[in-house]
Amino acid sequence: MTTTGPADGPADPAPARRRGRPGYDQAAILRAAVELFNRKGYDATSMGDLAKELGLTKPAIYHHVTSKEQLLGQALDDALDELTAVVTAASQDAAGTSAYERLREVVRRSVEVLVAHQPSVTLLLRVRGNSEVELAALQRRRWLDDRLAALVADAVAEGALRDDVPPALVSRLVFGMVNSLVEWYRPDGAYDRAMVAEAIAAIAFDGLARHEA
Amino acid sequence: MTTTGPADGPADPAPARRRGRPGYDQAAILRAAVELFNRKGYDATSMGDLAKELGLTKPAIYHHVTSKEQLLGQALDDALDELTAVVTAASQDAAGTSAYERLREVVRRSVEVLVAHQPSVTLLLRVRGNSEVELAALQRRRWLDDRLAALVADAVAEGALRDDVPPALVSRLVFGMVNSLVEWYRPDGAYDRAMVAEAIAAIAFDGLARHEA
Repeated sequence: MTTTGPADGPADPAPARRRGRPGYDQAAILRAAVELFNRKGYDATSMGDLAKELGLTKPAIYHHVTSKEQLLGQALDDALDELTAVVTAASQDAAGTSAYERLREVVRRSVEVLVAHQPSVTLLLRVRGNSEVELAALQRRRWLDDRLAALVADAVAEGALRDDVPPALVSRLVFGMVNSLVEWYRPDGAYDRAMVAEAIAAIAFDGLARHEA
Repeated sequence: MTTTGPADGPADPAPARRRGRPGYDQAAILRAAVELFNRKGYDATSMGDLAKELGLTKPAIYHHVTSKEQLLGQALDDALDELTAVVTAASQDAAGTSAYERLREVVRRSVEVLVAHQPSVTLLLRVRGNSEVELAALQRRRWLDDRLAALVADAVAEGALRDDVPPALVSRLVFGMVNSLVEWYRPDGAYDRAMVAEAIAAIAFDGLARHEA
């Protein structure tokens, strides 16, 4: 299970350093795994591919993680925990804010989560339910969808939103627009995240057409 | 290369029938391949998996198609040819229609293409550029994106659309909303395609907020 250090000979003096190759902790392995899953597809990626990507032996990786599924589960939880926090906050009207204000806020904060956690959200959005881990993630996604649809329904009931499109369809489409960011957004690109969040809110709530144009 | 027929003995009297197993033509193999690519991921699917799915031998499949890449290319061309036709029509103002009218129309027709060709469009939207075939598809997608951004810019120049969001960002977001359909839309579900197209146009152009609510 010990790894071969760069060039420091056979007698490693620090026993703690013998567990795992220097430079790779679990977080770094997870980041590399998510990047590889997104690039090659999760099902097409083996632990051997991941080891090769990191320049590690397979035993060295299994020293840190028990399975590919464990890495997938950690990445999906990372995305889901963030999104759940945003949606839970928006579902509570403790501050006396309107549902409409909270809906605009959840759009803005979802864009932030998506940009800050783009690799794990990308992976989440591609999950197809091919394993227990994926099915559990889909169930958590469904809970989010239901809360968002309820928030849209509340905003319609307040009279703030048009009532001619079903709330569940509105939330699918608006958050479909938000989620589409993962496919093209680059933090170093032409648009910063505040600008993108503002553009999505402008399109979704106010529309593109000039009124009385 | 001949296949073993169901139970019709070694002497097949119709030579034409010996080419390919009865019941599978190239179109049926392509449909099954696209379904499997979407379910398992393209990179994780082998020709052996496809043969198993169809209950064919690998040689029987290779009688119809030369490679997995050929199937991918055919599916991507199916989606791209349809989308290209829609976008090309919208880019021509031969009928004297406004850019704004043509933009609303291209949204509506894109929804139709997506619903009618959902499996191949789903595959197209998941392409990551891992092969020559995928890179060629990405190049055709980029052409579509550029044409759509130009159409948005024309509608802004007409004075029909707000000018505070860059046209390329508008087209990414609006068609991101359209494309998000592939992840959840079911033709036998609660919403028919005309209703979905209408909802997207209502959100994108008119906005959800009630004016003066």
